[in-house]
Amino acid sequence: MAPARRGLLLVVEGPEGAGKSTQVKRLSAWLGGRGQRHLELREPGGTPLGERIREILLDDPTREISAPAEAALFIASRAELVERIVRPALERGTVVTLDRFFLSTYAYQVHGRGLPEDEVRAANMLATGRLTPDLTILLRLSSEEGMKRADRRGIRDRMESVGDGFHRRVEQAFQRFATVEWQHAHPECGPIVAVDAGGSEDDVERSSREVLAGRWPDIFAG
Amino acid sequence: MAPARRGLLLVVEGPEGAGKSTQVKRLSAWLGGRGQRHLELREPGGTPLGERIREILLDDPTREISAPAEAALFIASRAELVERIVRPALERGTVVTLDRFFLSTYAYQVHGRGLPEDEVRAANMLATGRLTPDLTILLRLSSEEGMKRADRRGIRDRMESVGDGFHRRVEQAFQRFATVEWQHAHPECGPIVAVDAGGSEDDVERSSREVLAGRWPDIFAG
Repeated sequence: MAPARRGLLLVVEGPEGAGKSTQVKRLSAWLGGRGQRHLELREPGGTPLGERIREILLDDPTREISAPAEAALFIASRAELVERIVRPALERGTVVTLDRFFLSTYAYQVHGRGLPEDEVRAANMLATGRLTPDLTILLRLSSEEGMKRADRRGIRDRMESVGDGFHRRVEQAFQRFATVEWQHAHPECGPIVAVDAGGSEDDVERSSREVLAGRWPDIFAG
Repeated sequence: MAPARRGLLLVVEGPEGAGKSTQVKRLSAWLGGRGQRHLELREPGGTPLGERIREILLDDPTREISAPAEAALFIASRAELVERIVRPALERGTVVTLDRFFLSTYAYQVHGRGLPEDEVRAANMLATGRLTPDLTILLRLSSEEGMKRADRRGIRDRMESVGDGFHRRVEQAFQRFATVEWQHAHPECGPIVAVDAGGSEDDVERSSREVLAGRWPDIFAG
């Protein structure tokens, strides 16, 4: 018997305010319009356990959680999402779009908080059982522009109110993830393509879909 | 300047029903009677975050949580406890007694649930920042005797109602932890001394205190 048609795991990543959730929604709308079976998910969250963890992590800007505990909570949410939702959906041939995944952990917990990369990486592998994204679209934006956008939305949740040095380190990390050297050293992340997020939402959507159409024309070509 | 007198981190481990919490309480009572500054903690829990995690993990026997998410939640609770409570207490010279620590993670998550040891171990290191117990007292009990005791107490929480094959693997793991070979391969756990938990509570307390008095006579000798 031929193996069942497997779905795709597409991740959208980038710093605060880069427009990740907008682009994930636009991708979903496109997939829906094409009659493609699809599923839109966000991290942390996406399962009852994940939503409880999301509450703990993001809701209260005054709550203090130690850096390793924070990392482990993100990883717990990811583990539950992968096991309960993502894997079964991929087996059914669904295109799964994820708002944040590995790269956010490396950016925020390793580069932002200064946790040891080897240990965070191993914990991450534990969470995902070595599931690799088919493609990550990395939305690039300077940190100043990103924070300006977050301020314009009037929202600064717990992660966004940590301070600018933290955000500069995170932004620099996201820049590094676009390099070939970094990607070669991190095969668990799968292929990563950077897309300039400085333009309009329409521009970013067009660029993202061009990247996707180059790989999967039957799903994403115009 | 001489370094400040550091406290001690003493862990009590063992399978369900071995009498861990009873022995931790008796140790605390002894330390209190000697006027020794001491602190009694349990895992998961011991911090506001840890107690929320404890609720998620243990309260509802029908809740299903994937094995890697479960491991990550235990590790998040541990990280918070170590950073917020254990390290500061040790720096003040406190004797900290812990009901469960590394060995429970190895027993339940690695041997019981079958998660990869290397990854669980790295996640554990992430949680503790490589803090090593000064001594672990491993209460030994056959799994049949342990489950009999748990039934007698009339309590089977989520962890206890998983099934007997699971508990046999956990019990075998705890047996293995007492061997010199295992301990050499796991220096992060510190020294482990097995104490027979088949006798009366008084007997087990006496044996445990003998072990402790051999190392720290000023605190534990009769």
